[in-house]
Amino acid sequence: MTVSPFDHPYLSGLLGDEEVASLFSAAAELEAMLAFEVALAKAEAIEGLIPPAAARAIESAAHRFSPDVASLREATARDGVVVPDLVRQLRAAVGEPHAMHLHFGATSQDVIDSGLMLRLSRALPMLEDRLERLIGYLMGLSVRFEGRRLVGRTRMQAAIPITVADRLLSWRSPLERHVERLEIFTLEGLAVQFGGAAGTLDKLGGKAETVRAALADELGLADTPQWHSQRDRIMELAGLLAAVTGSLGKIGQDIALMADRGGEIVLSGGGGSSAMPHKQNPVAAEALVTLARFNAAQLGGLAQAAVHEQERSGTAWTLEWLILPQMVVACGAALRLAGMLLSSIEQLGTDSPISHNP
Amino acid sequence: MTVSPFDHPYLSGLLGDEEVASLFSAAAELEAMLAFEVALAKAEAIEGLIPPAAARAIESAAHRFSPDVASLREATARDGVVVPDLVRQLRAAVGEPHAMHLHFGATSQDVIDSGLMLRLSRALPMLEDRLERLIGYLMGLSVRFEGRRLVGRTRMQAAIPITVADRLLSWRSPLERHVERLEIFTLEGLAVQFGGAAGTLDKLGGKAETVRAALADELGLADTPQWHSQRDRIMELAGLLAAVTGSLGKIGQDIALMADRGGEIVLSGGGGSSAMPHKQNPVAAEALVTLARFNAAQLGGLAQAAVHEQERSGTAWTLEWLILPQMVVACGAALRLAGMLLSSIEQLGTDSPISHNP
Amino acid sequence: MTVSPFDHPYLSGLLGDEEVASLFSAAAELEAMLAFEVALAKAEAIEGLIPPAAARAIESAAHRFSPDVASLREATARDGVVVPDLVRQLRAAVGEPHAMHLHFGATSQDVIDSGLMLRLSRALPMLEDRLERLIGYLMGLSVRFEGRRLVGRTRMQAAIPITVADRLLSWRSPLERHVERLEIFTLEGLAVQFGGAAGTLDKLGGKAETVRAALADELGLADTPQWHSQRDRIMELAGLLAAVTGSLGKIGQDIALMADRGGEIVLSGGGGSSAMPHKQNPVAAEALVTLARFNAAQLGGLAQAAVHEQERSGTAWTLEWLILPQMVVACGAALRLAGMLLSSIEQLGTDSPISHNP
Amino acid sequence: MTVSPFDHPYLSGLLGDEEVASLFSAAAELEAMLAFEVALAKAEAIEGLIPPAAARAIESAAHRFSPDVASLREATARDGVVVPDLVRQLRAAVGEPHAMHLHFGATSQDVIDSGLMLRLSRALPMLEDRLERLIGYLMGLSVRFEGRRLVGRTRMQAAIPITVADRLLSWRSPLERHVERLEIFTLEGLAVQFGGAAGTLDKLGGKAETVRAALADELGLADTPQWHSQRDRIMELAGLLAAVTGSLGKIGQDIALMADRGGEIVLSGGGGSSAMPHKQNPVAAEALVTLARFNAAQLGGLAQAAVHEQERSGTAWTLEWLILPQMVVACGAALRLAGMLLSSIEQLGTDSPISHNP
Repeated sequence: MTVSPFDHPYLSGLLGDEEVASLFSAAAELEAMLAFEVALAKAEAIEGLIPPAAARAIESAAHRFSPDVASLREATARDGVVVPDLVRQLRAAVGEPHAMHLHFGATSQDVIDSGLMLRLSRALPMLEDRLERLIGYLMGLSVRFEGRRLVGRTRMQAAIPITVADRLLSWRSPLERHVERLEIFTLEGLAVQFGGAAGTLDKLGGKAETVRAALADELGLADTPQWHSQRDRIMELAGLLAAVTGSLGKIGQDIALMADRGGEIVLSGGGGSSAMPHKQNPVAAEALVTLARFNAAQLGGLAQAAVHEQERSGTAWTLEWLILPQMVVACGAALRLAGMLLSSIEQLGTDSPISHNP
Repeated sequence: MTVSPFDHPYLSGLLGDEEVASLFSAAAELEAMLAFEVALAKAEAIEGLIPPAAARAIESAAHRFSPDVASLREATARDGVVVPDLVRQLRAAVGEPHAMHLHFGATSQDVIDSGLMLRLSRALPMLEDRLERLIGYLMGLSVRFEGRRLVGRTRMQAAIPITVADRLLSWRSPLERHVERLEIFTLEGLAVQFGGAAGTLDKLGGKAETVRAALADELGLADTPQWHSQRDRIMELAGLLAAVTGSLGKIGQDIALMADRGGEIVLSGGGGSSAMPHKQNPVAAEALVTLARFNAAQLGGLAQAAVHEQERSGTAWTLEWLILPQMVVACGAALRLAGMLLSSIEQLGTDSPISHNP
Repeated sequence: MTVSPFDHPYLSGLLGDEEVASLFSAAAELEAMLAFEVALAKAEAIEGLIPPAAARAIESAAHRFSPDVASLREATARDGVVVPDLVRQLRAAVGEPHAMHLHFGATSQDVIDSGLMLRLSRALPMLEDRLERLIGYLMGLSVRFEGRRLVGRTRMQAAIPITVADRLLSWRSPLERHVERLEIFTLEGLAVQFGGAAGTLDKLGGKAETVRAALADELGLADTPQWHSQRDRIMELAGLLAAVTGSLGKIGQDIALMADRGGEIVLSGGGGSSAMPHKQNPVAAEALVTLARFNAAQLGGLAQAAVHEQERSGTAWTLEWLILPQMVVACGAALRLAGMLLSSIEQLGTDSPISHNP
Repeated sequence: MTVSPFDHPYLSGLLGDEEVASLFSAAAELEAMLAFEVALAKAEAIEGLIPPAAARAIESAAHRFSPDVASLREATARDGVVVPDLVRQLRAAVGEPHAMHLHFGATSQDVIDSGLMLRLSRALPMLEDRLERLIGYLMGLSVRFEGRRLVGRTRMQAAIPITVADRLLSWRSPLERHVERLEIFTLEGLAVQFGGAAGTLDKLGGKAETVRAALADELGLADTPQWHSQRDRIMELAGLLAAVTGSLGKIGQDIALMADRGGEIVLSGGGGSSAMPHKQNPVAAEALVTLARFNAAQLGGLAQAAVHEQERSGTAWTLEWLILPQMVVACGAALRLAGMLLSSIEQLGTDSPISHNP
């Protein structure tokens, strides 16, 4: 099925992002969940909570593990989460006598949320790299079209002349702030989740914090107390993703308006029409606006999941699954499209003086 | 890629719906678009706008057509819509001398929007059938648990005793209204879109309306003037979808709360936990709340697409592609889950008198 | 306090609507709630549930009633709803021996929701009248600028020439459908709410339905079984309001874009700038887009309230109070602004042939 | 008019916040805008751009200024923003020969956005103080109910026993992070806006940056280049506000669920019912959920305003006016209610061992 254009054979060519989306495939999630179980076993073996041989057996089983996806599907429908059946399958792969040591002291939320964080720890650098590249393009355009002018427009009306550099700066500055925000979030927000059945790591006794620290270290995530019912980090990230797509949407809207008026921008490429082959549509510019509006709406939906009742809300948590991956991919796609769009600018501004009402 | 749980190998077991989602696969969209082109050619041949032999050649080519999906993908990225390349490929399949008669007078929006309507005309009866079935279940539960009682609860507090039938009626009545709404929409809202390059069917001259009527008839859609930049029907449908998931979310929330308190409901099945095998989680009930909140948020996003500028907005239109199919599938999944959930009710209410503060 | 621009001394000049907003003042709500209590007493007196003298005493007390608003405020903070204290104050005004007959068998939700419906029964005809007037303006513009042309624009690019009438028709048609939808909703959706403590009218015994029918008749509302925990009508109305503002937002966006490009539209009036006195901003056109986006977002919020748990959800119900009145007023304001904007059109389209890339 | 409950005579008793809302009255906005004009005149006088006597005359006129609100209202309707008429009125108050020096080099967005920032610089410390107080309450509750237990609940089902302190920690930790986030935003996000007609401070020549720095200093805001079309700071703030209400909504939901089940919490006070005087409704807890869902939806709406086209978008900017003040007040109200609610906790948890399925 390909209900979402992000997953669609041809619509994803426009709206998707292969690199970022690859982190949200079933395979990538399974890999991340296995990585959690292996790292947990290692950390628990070091602390003497499970035998070292069990940790080795678990690592080895995870490496050669091939999931029964049909069973995972059926079990997810029944359990509301894939983990119980995954653990069952993986225990069978580990075999006796070590099977019981797999997933010791952990619960589904630990596996899913840490697995999400692991994948985000790969996605965010992609987004940051692309932001940096866009900033570079925008600086390059400033140099390239130095001295050229645009009609500054306020309230959809010609106001006064500005320079091309003025507008490019208003496009670039928010991106620079987004890079900073992403860096801060990467340091503090990408945190391991490890709490056990109700968040209290009740089975680990006095070794709970040491194991959690070792687990975090193994996974390359920040070590923090369990946060499963505290979704503020998720919401902060979603806000950042929507802010990035919002800033890119503004660029897209500006370019689409310049293309509509003509005279101030020349783009190479641009889309065709089935009825009017002569047209050159600013497709990427429009898609940036679309993705901005999409992520804005999704942000409103994800924020509803902050009301995460009790020790674990099936309701609110599942709502995140429906929304967050799409927001990350929409952000990736917008950055990809913005790169294409900015690279396609052949001319920007005019060199003649501009009258106020052209 | 499987960014959306609706498309995901195992998450779709919980949140997806195979039957409804199958209408939003790439294959289903291509099939619907080909059906449009074939029906258009027939209608135009009858009116003498294209040769009858061309219509036959187009129909025949469409039946044996096998798309080059990689090319469609690349072209969608460039053109913002799949139709120009699809028409190009299909013209090649039709071959000379008839190729030029394919897609005569039409434009991308005609193909995409009529193709959507065609698939909705198959999806809505599925939804309506399921609604009818749910209504039947709820009537059956009323009979089965007649005379049993519940604590009526207002503001999350015990209020006064009510009968099981009282609550079941409050679940059922909105579903009955939704059936009526769906029926009205099916009659009036599922309309052919045919307007040509800028909505004026400029190439068809005096035969525009006759061709459109024949096209609508061939496709089994209502015949209305082109509505491409008038998205009120889409928004009406989205409102209906969200209203259905909202009403089912209320049922899910009520059942989850009964399960939380215990004593008033017994469900068969229910989900397991990786940490606590004794638990029986009301997974389907929770998922109904999730899907209600998801569709509510999506409705807010889709409503942004009503601001559809000029004769065709790439921006607003593409936003619908990202949102509407997911709303339809979320609605299908919620109906599927509600059916499972209501079927799993083994006991409802109590037969003892109930004190006000149990 | 004037947190919302709809209530703001000067911002409401732009964004508000005095006529519609007057239905959402505290005074208007109190008046509607008193009307409910009076009508209920009458209906119950006819059925012999309360003495006729009590009904007369209640009507008389309601007419001379002057609420202690400070007490209402304090009580609303405590009770979450104004009704208990209002009933207490009104009972004091009725005095012995009839006080106990006031509000017999009713509960807060009956008073609030029926009071809302009463005010909506006055608001919707206002909206419908304005829609009719807009349709008239648009027909007038079609006649006035017959034969003139516009550049049809798709994807923010010049496509092919269209007539002014073509675009005006795409503005008008959805408004005509909205009139029909409003009429249907006015007939079926404006329903009395009367259910008592938990929706079962438990205190009225066999006379429950007769009293409800008489009450509905007295109030001029449709008679339907209690719907307090079934919010589909509210959501349907909200969808309609957002659909109207969405269609007007499209008109606003189109006009703002025409004003931006120049040449195709001349508006009288238009806003000034503090820095650039020469500018003529299409303020009303922009505000239409704003109100469309506002109502779209609110629709997403209101749809969350469909998950109305148990017999009465304090949470979901209160969310409606925060959102629905603003949506109605936003719709009223948009209709008002659209009227002003369309009336201010002095010239539309051009009479010269238009090249494809002006 | 009192369309919004935040402005409503009695509903604001439940949902409003007098202290925070006072910053969003018309009077407070006018005061902040006058403060901007006075500070600008001072800064420009120091730099020799206007005569020192003019700065003194402007300050003096501002102090005794009494606006003609009816004129402001009419002008806002015409201009889309209050500033041109305010400047006109204020110039009349300043009188000749200094009138022309008022507002020199500035434009509407400078006055409105800096005026907003000024009021936020007073609102955010209020929010932070209240967060600190809540954190204190939660610490106090941890000490007071040390050793008592709760049933940890996952997926709306009893899981395993936890301590009261476990749940209180999950309530408190996000609030501690919100304090940090607010502090960072207060330092960096509360920035002066000063750009002139199209953001380029074209009239100030080489003195633009010095004047802006002095203006920022005078107003107590961060000095940054103009950001008028870069709304990422506004969106960051909105995200923070929704995150705070979201975390409080989780607390409210948990308390409402505990109150629903009974046995684990005793609250003093609580709301009454018009039909059932015996009930004690957890009104404040429910209102916290309502405000969380409200702000979540508003966040989705505000994020749409990130697509702020060209040098100034009337559309997107006005959308912020409709949404942001309500979000700030909703946050203030939620903090107020959470303080009341936590203060009303008389008992939390049980001291007996708890079985898994009570």
